[in-house]
Amino acid sequence: MRVGILGTGVVGNTLGTKLVELGYDVKMGSRTASNDKAAEWVKSTGSSRASQGTFADAASFGEIVFNCTLGGISLEALKMAGGQNLRGKVLVDVANSLDFSKGMPPTLIISNTDSVGEQIQRTYPDVKVVKSLNTVAAPVMVNPQIVPGDTDIFVCGNDAGAKEQVKKILGEFGWKNITDLGDISASRGTEMWLALWVRLMMKNQNPIFNLHIHRPS
Amino acid sequence: MRVGILGTGVVGNTLGTKLVELGYDVKMGSRTASNDKAAEWVKSTGSSRASQGTFADAASFGEIVFNCTLGGISLEALKMAGGQNLRGKVLVDVANSLDFSKGMPPTLIISNTDSVGEQIQRTYPDVKVVKSLNTVAAPVMVNPQIVPGDTDIFVCGNDAGAKEQVKKILGEFGWKNITDLGDISASRGTEMWLALWVRLMMKNQNPIFNLHIHRPS
Repeated sequence: MRVGILGTGVVGNTLGTKLVELGYDVKMGSRTASNDKAAEWVKSTGSSRASQGTFADAASFGEIVFNCTLGGISLEALKMAGGQNLRGKVLVDVANSLDFSKGMPPTLIISNTDSVGEQIQRTYPDVKVVKSLNTVAAPVMVNPQIVPGDTDIFVCGNDAGAKEQVKKILGEFGWKNITDLGDISASRGTEMWLALWVRLMMKNQNPIFNLHIHRPS
Repeated sequence: MRVGILGTGVVGNTLGTKLVELGYDVKMGSRTASNDKAAEWVKSTGSSRASQGTFADAASFGEIVFNCTLGGISLEALKMAGGQNLRGKVLVDVANSLDFSKGMPPTLIISNTDSVGEQIQRTYPDVKVVKSLNTVAAPVMVNPQIVPGDTDIFVCGNDAGAKEQVKKILGEFGWKNITDLGDISASRGTEMWLALWVRLMMKNQNPIFNLHIHRPS
């Protein structure tokens, strides 16, 4: 299966590498076709299943596309990717709109009455946006076992079939406790979690952790 | 020890009753000295250690004071309580600024670049504000064992001694995993967690749950 990755940062690299390891064909997209970071990533995988291109190339290539750009510029990146290249596809939105410009702790550029996930779904109504993985650090996304116990990962989105596809990939990553929070407006919750996540990270100076929800059985 | 409770809602009732049971003398304060809900609460405890009064009466009475008013009106309630009645005291801020006026899910009146906890600390610099307990439903606050496993509760605030006092009371409530998130600005994180909390509550139609943070040891 072909996957497009939008973004060349740590999240795009980590997800791209894991997907290649799992046997997916992965094209990493950025503003330019010959981006250095994307080229380094392709080389690092040592696999002919990894390639690079523009945002539009990656969107067009992928049967499923991961948005790994910064939340504050995701709409701009998706505009470059092109709505026609994403139409009808599943877009896994992993973005958070953290703004570090005023130092630690960061605030969110979009929150409370809106979210990155909702913004994207509103702008591209014929794309099947599924918000997921944005609640944990990149190494945890693709290797949940580095945190002891079966901790929780969330999906939300308006299309049930799209969520099933994403849950299948999450299962391949090793996630066992996958909670469907409902429609895409639940992105607000998972994105605003970052405010607490950041404080927990600052306290321990370590991003390798995750939450598990306990309930009476 | 004397405790003032500001607010006559479910949170004020629940905390007040538990504190009376634990042997504290508790005065519940509201806008008027003879508020019906406070009178009902006093009667419900069947204890001479429970009493009622105005916000100012409760603030003046308490050696430690719990803010159990709605986050959107906490500053107004504290103005009625009177800064001179709170000076130098520990104020445990349990408030969330949930706005249900546009239906479910609620948004927050104050978030992202500010929080109820910070607002109160800024307005009353000589009060020792400790944010806590706002991350769980009222029944869980005073009886954490109703959620299986030792889940997590947070404290934050600028005064270390005040946090120790609050941690002692949390221990009496039954909390074992108490995480100090640092200064009062961490209130943003624990208040913004409500956006995810609300979605988790909606999914299961049950507010009795809590999070536990897992880390590699």
